[in-house]
Amino acid sequence: MERVDDLQLKGLRIVQDTDLFSFGIDAVLLADFVRASGRARIADLGTGTGILPLLLYGRGKGTHITGVELQPRAAELARRNVTDNGLEECIDIVEANLCGLRLPELFDVVVSNPPYMLKESGRVKDNPAMATARTELHCTVRDVFETAARLLKESGLFFMVHRPNRMADIFTAARATRLEPKRLRFVKPYRESPPNLLLLECRKGGGAFLKVEPDLVVYQEREVYTDEILEIYGMMKGAGRA
Amino acid sequence: MERVDDLQLKGLRIVQDTDLFSFGIDAVLLADFVRASGRARIADLGTGTGILPLLLYGRGKGTHITGVELQPRAAELARRNVTDNGLEECIDIVEANLCGLRLPELFDVVVSNPPYMLKESGRVKDNPAMATARTELHCTVRDVFETAARLLKESGLFFMVHRPNRMADIFTAARATRLEPKRLRFVKPYRESPPNLLLLECRKGGGAFLKVEPDLVVYQEREVYTDEILEIYGMMKGAGRA
Repeated sequence: MERVDDLQLKGLRIVQDTDLFSFGIDAVLLADFVRASGRARIADLGTGTGILPLLLYGRGKGTHITGVELQPRAAELARRNVTDNGLEECIDIVEANLCGLRLPELFDVVVSNPPYMLKESGRVKDNPAMATARTELHCTVRDVFETAARLLKESGLFFMVHRPNRMADIFTAARATRLEPKRLRFVKPYRESPPNLLLLECRKGGGAFLKVEPDLVVYQEREVYTDEILEIYGMMKGAGRA
Repeated sequence: MERVDDLQLKGLRIVQDTDLFSFGIDAVLLADFVRASGRARIADLGTGTGILPLLLYGRGKGTHITGVELQPRAAELARRNVTDNGLEECIDIVEANLCGLRLPELFDVVVSNPPYMLKESGRVKDNPAMATARTELHCTVRDVFETAARLLKESGLFFMVHRPNRMADIFTAARATRLEPKRLRFVKPYRESPPNLLLLECRKGGGAFLKVEPDLVVYQEREVYTDEILEIYGMMKGAGRA
């Protein structure tokens, strides 16, 4: 079923299909974590219905964004989201498997909100579209890093959101592809919880030094967001709604 | 200068040389983090003056502990600490470089509180003994993992304390040596600080799944330890002092 959401950001709207995997807080936090100038050329690996290109555009990050999506139905919705928001000059959607992907240009910045779960972890009870978005059926974290490294200019930046329990895979893939981890931030539901997401910035050919930032906490109590989350969502007092 | 400290644990005492690197909270937290039965045979890589063998013995972890130390002066003090505490049957001190080290037995558990700093990081202003304990002059984190893997039985456990900014090196070395990261805990000075230490448990030949535990916070406010730290130090109300 199709559903249209207002992104509360420069009047942008997104149409999603509730039978596909809908975007969540992960994409919003990643878009906030990304450092990219207004002149950057950006690629998004596994763009789904195009949420990251829309959020990055809305935040003035990047002059042109290429979203890559394997699933035809998601890619179709992503193209509609580009057209409906009048962003044909800023965002391209490429329907392709990111494994082994080459594109005619190199990018300043690559971003990805890839499937989190190992294929062997067995929780593949979802429908095929959801399973592809959630589980490493068609690409592994190593594939994502290899393609990011191939698409990036030397010294270009790669930004990813993923799960802390995959850190061994993530750091090993980063080193193997010369995308050196430079900045890491853990996200946790509550102050006392273990982290359930991580935000990572890597630099192609960067030197070995990783800065670990203070955690990003989502809730200050049940159903009450922290001020930082409200700020990221543009919902701070006085900020108003679009 | 020599200084004798009471470990507040089963009457154990430790003599240290204040010109060497004295043990800190890192060793205490690692000893607490280690899971080892009273029958385990344990090796400690870079034992300094033998603090980890003493703390592990005091906590009933391990039936026999071998401490390996490169620096002659530290190894001499470690041997004195074993003798002064009457632990000759429980603890051996081996004076050796851990790089390439082989020992006549295999171990159930290996522990290490190795030098944290990259050789290139340049802050080597300490005297040579302190520099060796702090900086990767004589062994890298990769050397520590290789020796731990060589000394461990299959399915044996490796426990390490290190810095979060070395995670890329740590996870890459872990994977390369088949010491799969299984349990990770970050330590932070205050609830809002970024982590400044990590505690890691790896299993030789283990499957890929990493559990990230809630953070260990040291201070609840300036100069006031959290209850968990007081408990680890055995200083909770009612526990009394040795």
